[in-house]
Amino acid sequence: MDSRMIGILGGGQLGRMLLEAANRRNIRVAVLDKKGSPAKQINATNPGVEGSFADPQAIRKLASHCDVLTVEIEHVDTYVLEKLENESKSQGKKLEIHPSWQAIRTIQDKYLQKMTLLEGKIDISRSIAVPTASEMELRKIGSQLRYPFMLKARTGAYDGRGNYAVKSEKDIEPALDALKDRPLYAEEWVNFTMELAVMVVKTEDKADTSSWEMSTVSYPTVETIHEDSICKLVYAPARQISNETDQRAQRLARKAIASFKGKGIFGVEMFLLKDDSILVNEIAPRPHNSGHYTIESCRLSQYDLHLQAILGRPIPAKATALLRPAIMLNILGGDDPKSFLQLASAADAAGAKVHLYGKGDATKGRKMGHLTMLGNNMDELEDDVEPLIRLADKIRGKQSTHGISAPKRISQPLVGVVTGSISDQPHLEACYNILNDFGIPYERGIKSAHRTPEAMAEYARNTGFRGIKVIIAAAGGAAHLPGMVAAFSKSTPVIGLPIKPSIGDGWDSLVSMTNMPRGCPVLTVGVNNAVNAALGAARILAQWDQTIKARVEEYVNNAAAESLENDHKLLQESQT
Amino acid sequence: MDSRMIGILGGGQLGRMLLEAANRRNIRVAVLDKKGSPAKQINATNPGVEGSFADPQAIRKLASHCDVLTVEIEHVDTYVLEKLENESKSQGKKLEIHPSWQAIRTIQDKYLQKMTLLEGKIDISRSIAVPTASEMELRKIGSQLRYPFMLKARTGAYDGRGNYAVKSEKDIEPALDALKDRPLYAEEWVNFTMELAVMVVKTEDKADTSSWEMSTVSYPTVETIHEDSICKLVYAPARQISNETDQRAQRLARKAIASFKGKGIFGVEMFLLKDDSILVNEIAPRPHNSGHYTIESCRLSQYDLHLQAILGRPIPAKATALLRPAIMLNILGGDDPKSFLQLASAADAAGAKVHLYGKGDATKGRKMGHLTMLGNNMDELEDDVEPLIRLADKIRGKQSTHGISAPKRISQPLVGVVTGSISDQPHLEACYNILNDFGIPYERGIKSAHRTPEAMAEYARNTGFRGIKVIIAAAGGAAHLPGMVAAFSKSTPVIGLPIKPSIGDGWDSLVSMTNMPRGCPVLTVGVNNAVNAALGAARILAQWDQTIKARVEEYVNNAAAESLENDHKLLQESQT
Repeated sequence: MDSRMIGILGGGQLGRMLLEAANRRNIRVAVLDKKGSPAKQINATNPGVEGSFADPQAIRKLASHCDVLTVEIEHVDTYVLEKLENESKSQGKKLEIHPSWQAIRTIQDKYLQKMTLLEGKIDISRSIAVPTASEMELRKIGSQLRYPFMLKARTGAYDGRGNYAVKSEKDIEPALDALKDRPLYAEEWVNFTMELAVMVVKTEDKADTSSWEMSTVSYPTVETIHEDSICKLVYAPARQISNETDQRAQRLARKAIASFKGKGIFGVEMFLLKDDSILVNEIAPRPHNSGHYTIESCRLSQYDLHLQAILGRPIPAKATALLRPAIMLNILGGDDPKSFLQLASAADAAGAKVHLYGKGDATKGRKMGHLTMLGNNMDELEDDVEPLIRLADKIRGKQSTHGISAPKRISQPLVGVVTGSISDQPHLEACYNILNDFGIPYERGIKSAHRTPEAMAEYARNTGFRGIKVIIAAAGGAAHLPGMVAAFSKSTPVIGLPIKPSIGDGWDSLVSMTNMPRGCPVLTVGVNNAVNAALGAARILAQWDQTIKARVEEYVNNAAAESLENDHKLLQESQT
Repeated sequence: MDSRMIGILGGGQLGRMLLEAANRRNIRVAVLDKKGSPAKQINATNPGVEGSFADPQAIRKLASHCDVLTVEIEHVDTYVLEKLENESKSQGKKLEIHPSWQAIRTIQDKYLQKMTLLEGKIDISRSIAVPTASEMELRKIGSQLRYPFMLKARTGAYDGRGNYAVKSEKDIEPALDALKDRPLYAEEWVNFTMELAVMVVKTEDKADTSSWEMSTVSYPTVETIHEDSICKLVYAPARQISNETDQRAQRLARKAIASFKGKGIFGVEMFLLKDDSILVNEIAPRPHNSGHYTIESCRLSQYDLHLQAILGRPIPAKATALLRPAIMLNILGGDDPKSFLQLASAADAAGAKVHLYGKGDATKGRKMGHLTMLGNNMDELEDDVEPLIRLADKIRGKQSTHGISAPKRISQPLVGVVTGSISDQPHLEACYNILNDFGIPYERGIKSAHRTPEAMAEYARNTGFRGIKVIIAAAGGAAHLPGMVAAFSKSTPVIGLPIKPSIGDGWDSLVSMTNMPRGCPVLTVGVNNAVNAALGAARILAQWDQTIKARVEEYVNNAAAESLENDHKLLQESQT
């Protein structure tokens, strides 16, 4: 397909998964790393170069037989990359280096990274350089940023190493002790509600934030959960964020990456704040842990698209769309060098896709592999993954309790049940019972078309973003609620349930619901027939969920059995 | 996870994909095949054995450092496997061989394979051994089986080589010329409507058809399309077969595989006949071309489960469920040794998952790779794959016309629109227009609850199996159709559209539809409001299809724009 040789600096797990994608398409790859490194284990066609990705001589040796160089780790020697590029140009050769040495060098220094983002008008947390690592200097910064703030090493930091949380003046001395020999900067403390991440593919070489729409493509926004500053879990898509937030995070990530020179895949870690604003936290100029889920969940993975981008090949239109939700759980080393294999085995038996990186025995906290669980919906997935999270916690010696290391389980409602008034609620008991029995997650609400028209409109507008697949709207009297919810939601199916008021027989409400104008459907059931409203919603969901379908059919079969039994009883009575 | 060494006899593409699955879980594998064979290219941790999978000495060499032996091709020397097993037993060692040499030996001889299936009471086409390859013998067989019949080599046949279609007595001589030096058998000609295939995992060692439910697990039934006796396309799931047929095919395949000794993955090729009966055509004791789609479409692939089975590890409950539909297209060599790369490139650019097997230059018709296109529904998939099929045909020098080499496109309807009488059809024009505009595949039908109650019941019962996600049932007068369809379909959502009859205002029909008893919902729209019936169905489908969702919102926005424009016009008129 492409006969060029790609050289990868680094042969760890990211290099290995890049090799998998390359092997699958017979793309030629040479790896620079130690003999037997994870990536080299699955590349028998080319021995690559033995050595370190930080060693200029080894990098030169790799470059000598490659057409394109790329990295799986940012801690490479960028000065030799710069020289190689210049030499190649002056000799009229065509050695391409992606991403650019400029991007890698800037990103290596977290403070410079932040300043580049700031120049590109990307929202980040306030950061201050620490030119001299003195107590006085830090006390000054403490008064500027307030406590707590983060003291961070500008270079060589990863997985939380090189970070120190300065909670008060008292922490300044130990923070300096821990980090004093390194170039430092200080960062404002961010009270985030969720950590988000977006993988971005850059397809144009130049750095230009204004052309981000042309030069970048993004994967969906995912939710990441860190523990001890190491990525633990990734939820794809992020749970309970609106479509608008997802789109905003993707735009922000794409603009951030457009600020850097070079092609290829980049990871963007972000914070979602309480006011729904988003800050970029950190950039990785390479495949990223938060993008592993793309291997199974998207048409093409972050590794596939990295290869496409650095080879100048097209990025297919639907490549990054999420085909199925997924949860990714890292497989980390415990105290016992082999205990991580228990998690791999359990994951395997639970039907997760297990990726082990071929690193042999584990040291505690080391990334030994990951697992990706696929499912039809996030609810099912959370159920499937929960025992694996508990096992992962046990292996790492963590206490697994809700809200601490195991994430709080958020059930995504599929049905929204709304009434115009609290007095309608008793009429919905039978509806709630069925939804409960069928295991269908739902939410209840009081939205009045007349008393709280703005809240009703806001609710209806957001149902689609929030993953609500069906709305059941109950109303009596004028019974505007179902029709107005249908109007504001635009594309969510609305089941109308007419409620018999204290005066009249409910017929007026039924008429109001069925007599909707062309263009705005309300799917109406009989007066006070909350059972049929729930069953109607269940039948809709059953079309895409086999478990719900089985429950619906079980319900119908039970009703049939009961009816047959009554018939039988009656027959027996008449015979005796 | 498992420290045992697995030896694979054969290192072609099936061995390569088995290696991918093993690498991903750090399972140790040694391959017996030529140096640089497809599987060996991605195994740098073990050089395996250089030689042929048919050479006893090479097989012995491989066995000497393995714990488990398996095959990726059935044309291996089973006598050395038999000896190895006996030697291992007598020496108290634990060399496992999966599937068993008995199964491989039986399957190698297609006639013995058929007789074994017959003993297990598996439906197959009538087959007759040809002990002496004489014209007289074949003429006798011709009178028994009638013409045309198939003359087949019992051994060493694959991809159609070794088969001869004997259309009349005249073909007997050339058939004998082509095949006379080989052991032969004759097979009844099967007029099938579709070729089906099911991948089966056997988890118990013993051969026992009666325990098939305990000893086997199956993947869904797929549709295969062959060209020149080589698999060309696989549709997962098979298009337009009922759930019942799918289940029946899976059961038949599992029973067939339970007839053979040993563990591991087996491919079962079947014929679906006009009367909906199914015959087993052929068994493969290894991963199979018709199961490649499982890599991307299921939680665990045929390769994953082969490893699970031969290592005696558990098969997860949901492992074989189809998570998303897929179409697999083989990438075959053309006249030009490199032309297949055009298809790989085009597939890559179209967002398909491309698998190239590392075989270098192509010979015509050779399997060089395959592509798997993933999507949300079969309709979308067929659209996405069509240009690739045309390119594949062009590369192979085939004329690409509907019904010849490109398969006839079957659009899977998502909405069933039924009326009780032909006279209701004009009222549905607006409904059809919207479904057409939105690109929603639908089917129309006349089903009367009163005139054709059986046909109506049959239709309603099968909608779910056939992939119909919503039924729109229109009726006037007594208007029983929507309610009866809801009763018989059990779990499909039914939208009721009351039709105004020549006498009366249609109110009676609306009342009939909304007044359904608890347990059997009809989601009713206004009298004659075919627009809202269609939009209701579209809103339901929009919950799982972004394209339909976009169309629904576009429709709503257009209606809003029109309304605003009218308002503006009115304002202008009143100002002039």
